[in-house]
Amino acid sequence: MLALTNVRGDLSWRFMLLWLVLLAGAARAEDGHALWMRYVPVDPPRAEEYRARFRELIAPDATPTQRAARAELLEGLEGLLGQSPRPHAGAPGEGALLLGTPDSSPWLVPLRKEIDGLGAEGYLIRRTWVGAKQVTVIAARNDIGVLYGVFHLLRLLQTAAPIGDLEIRETPRVKLRVLNHWDDLDGHVERGYAGASLWDWHKLPDWRDPRYTDYARANASLGINGTVLNNVNADALSLTPMYLRKAAALADVFRPYGIRVYLSARFSAPMEIGGLDTADPLDPRVRRWWRDKADEIYRLIPDFGGFLVKANSEGQPGPQDYGRSHADGANLLADALADHGGVVMWRAFVYSHAVPADRATQAYAEFIRLDGGFRRNVLLQVKNGPIDFQPREPFHPLFGAMPETPLMMEFQITKEYLGFATHLVYLGTLYEETLRADTHMRGPGSTVARVVDGSLHGAALTGMAGVANVGTDRNWTGSHFDQANWYAFGRLAWNPHQSARDIARDWVAMTFSPDPEVVRPVVDMMMASREAAVDYMTPLGLHHLMARGHHYGPGPWVDGGPRAEWTSVYYHRADRDGIGFDRGVHGSNAVAQYAAPVAREFGDVRRVPERYLLWFHHVRWDHRMRSGRTLWSELVHRYSDGVARVGAMRGTWEGLRGKVDEARHREVGAFLRIQQQEAQWWRDASVAYFQSLNGLPLPAGEAPPSRPLEYYQALQFPYAPGDGR
Amino acid sequence: MLALTNVRGDLSWRFMLLWLVLLAGAARAEDGHALWMRYVPVDPPRAEEYRARFRELIAPDATPTQRAARAELLEGLEGLLGQSPRPHAGAPGEGALLLGTPDSSPWLVPLRKEIDGLGAEGYLIRRTWVGAKQVTVIAARNDIGVLYGVFHLLRLLQTAAPIGDLEIRETPRVKLRVLNHWDDLDGHVERGYAGASLWDWHKLPDWRDPRYTDYARANASLGINGTVLNNVNADALSLTPMYLRKAAALADVFRPYGIRVYLSARFSAPMEIGGLDTADPLDPRVRRWWRDKADEIYRLIPDFGGFLVKANSEGQPGPQDYGRSHADGANLLADALADHGGVVMWRAFVYSHAVPADRATQAYAEFIRLDGGFRRNVLLQVKNGPIDFQPREPFHPLFGAMPETPLMMEFQITKEYLGFATHLVYLGTLYEETLRADTHMRGPGSTVARVVDGSLHGAALTGMAGVANVGTDRNWTGSHFDQANWYAFGRLAWNPHQSARDIARDWVAMTFSPDPEVVRPVVDMMMASREAAVDYMTPLGLHHLMARGHHYGPGPWVDGGPRAEWTSVYYHRADRDGIGFDRGVHGSNAVAQYAAPVAREFGDVRRVPERYLLWFHHVRWDHRMRSGRTLWSELVHRYSDGVARVGAMRGTWEGLRGKVDEARHREVGAFLRIQQQEAQWWRDASVAYFQSLNGLPLPAGEAPPSRPLEYYQALQFPYAPGDGR
Repeated sequence: MLALTNVRGDLSWRFMLLWLVLLAGAARAEDGHALWMRYVPVDPPRAEEYRARFRELIAPDATPTQRAARAELLEGLEGLLGQSPRPHAGAPGEGALLLGTPDSSPWLVPLRKEIDGLGAEGYLIRRTWVGAKQVTVIAARNDIGVLYGVFHLLRLLQTAAPIGDLEIRETPRVKLRVLNHWDDLDGHVERGYAGASLWDWHKLPDWRDPRYTDYARANASLGINGTVLNNVNADALSLTPMYLRKAAALADVFRPYGIRVYLSARFSAPMEIGGLDTADPLDPRVRRWWRDKADEIYRLIPDFGGFLVKANSEGQPGPQDYGRSHADGANLLADALADHGGVVMWRAFVYSHAVPADRATQAYAEFIRLDGGFRRNVLLQVKNGPIDFQPREPFHPLFGAMPETPLMMEFQITKEYLGFATHLVYLGTLYEETLRADTHMRGPGSTVARVVDGSLHGAALTGMAGVANVGTDRNWTGSHFDQANWYAFGRLAWNPHQSARDIARDWVAMTFSPDPEVVRPVVDMMMASREAAVDYMTPLGLHHLMARGHHYGPGPWVDGGPRAEWTSVYYHRADRDGIGFDRGVHGSNAVAQYAAPVAREFGDVRRVPERYLLWFHHVRWDHRMRSGRTLWSELVHRYSDGVARVGAMRGTWEGLRGKVDEARHREVGAFLRIQQQEAQWWRDASVAYFQSLNGLPLPAGEAPPSRPLEYYQALQFPYAPGDGR
Repeated sequence: MLALTNVRGDLSWRFMLLWLVLLAGAARAEDGHALWMRYVPVDPPRAEEYRARFRELIAPDATPTQRAARAELLEGLEGLLGQSPRPHAGAPGEGALLLGTPDSSPWLVPLRKEIDGLGAEGYLIRRTWVGAKQVTVIAARNDIGVLYGVFHLLRLLQTAAPIGDLEIRETPRVKLRVLNHWDDLDGHVERGYAGASLWDWHKLPDWRDPRYTDYARANASLGINGTVLNNVNADALSLTPMYLRKAAALADVFRPYGIRVYLSARFSAPMEIGGLDTADPLDPRVRRWWRDKADEIYRLIPDFGGFLVKANSEGQPGPQDYGRSHADGANLLADALADHGGVVMWRAFVYSHAVPADRATQAYAEFIRLDGGFRRNVLLQVKNGPIDFQPREPFHPLFGAMPETPLMMEFQITKEYLGFATHLVYLGTLYEETLRADTHMRGPGSTVARVVDGSLHGAALTGMAGVANVGTDRNWTGSHFDQANWYAFGRLAWNPHQSARDIARDWVAMTFSPDPEVVRPVVDMMMASREAAVDYMTPLGLHHLMARGHHYGPGPWVDGGPRAEWTSVYYHRADRDGIGFDRGVHGSNAVAQYAAPVAREFGDVRRVPERYLLWFHHVRWDHRMRSGRTLWSELVHRYSDGVARVGAMRGTWEGLRGKVDEARHREVGAFLRIQQQEAQWWRDASVAYFQSLNGLPLPAGEAPPSRPLEYYQALQFPYAPGDGR
């Protein structure tokens, strides 16, 4: 009914009634599929203002990207304002909206020099004059910048941001902003909690599901410009002609949205699909095979992005199988791709149970000596922390430590260790915490963000990868709030210096409502959510204590099995007397991999931030914490407090009933209930387990676990989703 | 814009424009999710008439089923007529619509006797008088009948059927109308081509996805009243308390829609989850275990339907592991369920490679001697044909042959052998062909339908099962046209004597448009579609010639492997001289399992319908067909003709551009293109293969296969969907 203000004079009550019915219908359809691109009516005064601003549209439509930008703008304004600007071809009138590049629009030629300074993907949004007419310009050097600018303008309207004197100049700080899909060719998604793979390989290339376009739109709205289609635990078949044709069809769909396709490459592919008897990176036949394969790929996908490789890690083949280094392996592929402009993203996530050293130290030890040994088109892709996407880790010591090598960030968007799809955990704060961490590699201010954006060491090639959380679930991500993690990743990949809170604010306004009475409480809830999860799962620096394999639920007792570093006891080292992993100078000395000021802080039990205490130190149960409590008391307190904060989140959400559409309100509410049950389960199982070791009484006021330890230890979930294979 | 006719006088052009925009929006959203329950506006003159008929609604809302009936009616009429009847509580006025039972509505008490005659699930729809007011009544003995009646009335409006003097009395002819989901607990669907399992076991019981309700609505709209949640290749874990609670949550959602939940039971469950060392059906501990298990289930699901069992078949455990009969096994479970009113659906699909007899004869041989040996609450569930859901099979010889045993029909709705989701193959004609087949067991007219509906032998317990084709795909069934197979199964389960063409007509009108220019060509296309598939895959009685395992594409050369009856050469027996499986008196004598008149017809190579020729006879390549062609010539002709008819389907569909919404038109068009490619592949591969055996030249005018035989034989599809495990 808000959008009625432009219909004057002849309104009837029937019209009103009809409109209400239709609005009700629209509300009923809120299934989350539209993501943050809902384009629902803005409130009447603003709609009035916007309509005057955007009376007519002058936009080229000669290329697919130009048409995508134009279509998105028309659809967006139609939804937001109830009317879209009149397409127009001649000279701009008052309230014109001008889209284009200096090459596609004569009106933008005067801006050429200024626009050139914004780079290949940057854009300018400006309220300005053409002759006597006041107009709005979205201009860029290339079409893709215009599309990005369109999404930016739409975001401003969606979030009720002031647009009085628009003057926005944006350039991405990171060059490669990519999703990593851990999708298998049979449709299974490793660590996926949102249904099956988006890619319907069986029906490709002939059937291009419309959801591929929506996926591309969503990514382009954030500036994501690359996607690795298949699992890093790769199947060589993805490089066969049949699958390359399927990948090419996806690339065709994504291209207008500025998204390049990449593939995970299995290092042993020359043997598995190439008929060779070796994959030795120095063997000329192997080099030839990869060159030919690259040529074949580029014939099908002229803008192919390159390869992502997991090698000599968790059973994957790699160059070390032939006594060669990771640099030899990466350079092999880099040479094959170089002439075509492709890159290799080589993962640093390697560790071996054959190596006795602390797993947290192994990647650094392996790669630090290779600095300077990689081709120019190789990036080293490093996870945010030295173990594996835990609820909290200190930053990875490789960041800042390889000045001659472009280091890509690898974040996990899918919540493998953070409650799957049902726990509301906003990861913006996790990403922000890592990006703002100071490596001190070039003195104070040497943040991880500055390593990633290349400014610390002047890297020309930069990148950020996120392990995708999307699948065939109607809401894409398995839960409404997990959309925020996709969103936050994309926004931070564009600019890693942004604030997680600002991003959350935008997301809530676009996804639920710009009403401050919705935005404020929901953002507060999101901002506190990850800390709550850390506390009910692994407080005070504990890590890797989940159940084996699928990682669903608590498993601090996990022991035995093929590899010590796949157990929990390896990480917590708890016994009758104390708990924690000594990574100080008298322990594994992992601290020595950090710059001296950081090493001193982390290595000193009196200085280390308590959030990392048990990550770096083994301390006694009666260790005195800053709160004055003993460690044991503090630990139990944190567990309980984490659970309580989920209860508070439920209360907050309950208070939004009627302010959020019913369908999503009900679903989020149900998931919060599951989260609270599982938080309690984590707390009870963990407390029961540690108590079984230390024999200490519970602190005063703390409820005993509701079941005996054996109950929790006996729970089995053979079909928990997302398990690896 | 059609629904505008009730808004008079003060219409403005803006209103029209807005309405057009909204309609355009609605059209864009045609993703098939609404199935045949789209409830889009009817044309204005009819809308006018209907609105006068349905001015007010008098309907009880005290029970969940009553509320479901009322809500469906209001939503349906709102969509169809642009306005729903006014809810009303007092005496009926002119144009009232009265819903209810004699117990829930005082106005329906006079109908009690008449309604009682319609049975527990029947209903009456009648245009009648209450005092001086003309009203419409939907009345039934129980709430569920009213809901069925509501769907019937909505269907009449959706299909533009005349409703002048409504007088409809409906009673289902079959008691148990159930879907069989071959869904594994990890979300995989065996022979599923529509995404993953609908059941999100991980989030159950706490999260009840709204799609469960829509699934129940769709089934209730057809009269389907049961659903077996898990794969017949069952996992014993589905009977553990954790999974029973999940199943109970689904049962709670389905109950208001008259749908009972059943489970596939693994025969060895007493060992796997019960701690026993045997599953021998005569062991008292085993009997006790199943009784206790049944009690446990009924505490959670008071209206639990019962068990479906696949035993001693394709590696599944069963009573024969202990030297007991299938009757012993079925009766074990039947005894456990009897007091609770549950039934056992025991599958007759058994065969063994240890038995040298023709696979087509084994089920009959196994079960015929058990007639009369089953408990009253056991049904024997028999596939439509003696092999396994082939494009065409003669009816199963068990139909009509076990007068003392209720025989359930098992149809496959999912198209394991009929092109997966991409081939447009309407199965209504396949079902109809089987149901109308005359077993001659009690003289002419002893149709399979009369076995299934119990009228042939006076069976009290009757049933029809369909192996479901639904999954998490947005359109439920993997393609728009596969919705028709779910629909046709449901309608035929209600009344197996209905016409496949009539059902197709209803479905097209509801799903696409009641416009005769849409209905006529689409129905014609559907009616011819299965015959086309038979011809391009396995004409003239050929069968089981698809690729191994996943069954995707042709594999007439399949030979070797663990079991002869899992090869193609076992079935076609082609060589230099001839082709076909001799099942006559000098062959496997499978014909002897049919009633004498049928056996004589099938067993005589001169009398057998040519559609079954190679099913029952081995003939020479130069065998003269009724067309005058040699068999070889006819065979190639059929293959080519099947392909050509898919081309004709594409032409028909292309002609509907603009008459069908663009999104669905594009998707169906793309799938038809895939179907044509794959039909050509089937034809070329099959012709190349048989030609490699007989060395005969191609008939004049027939194009040679586009590739050599080796090409087709080398094709591998390791990730074709739906494979068994």
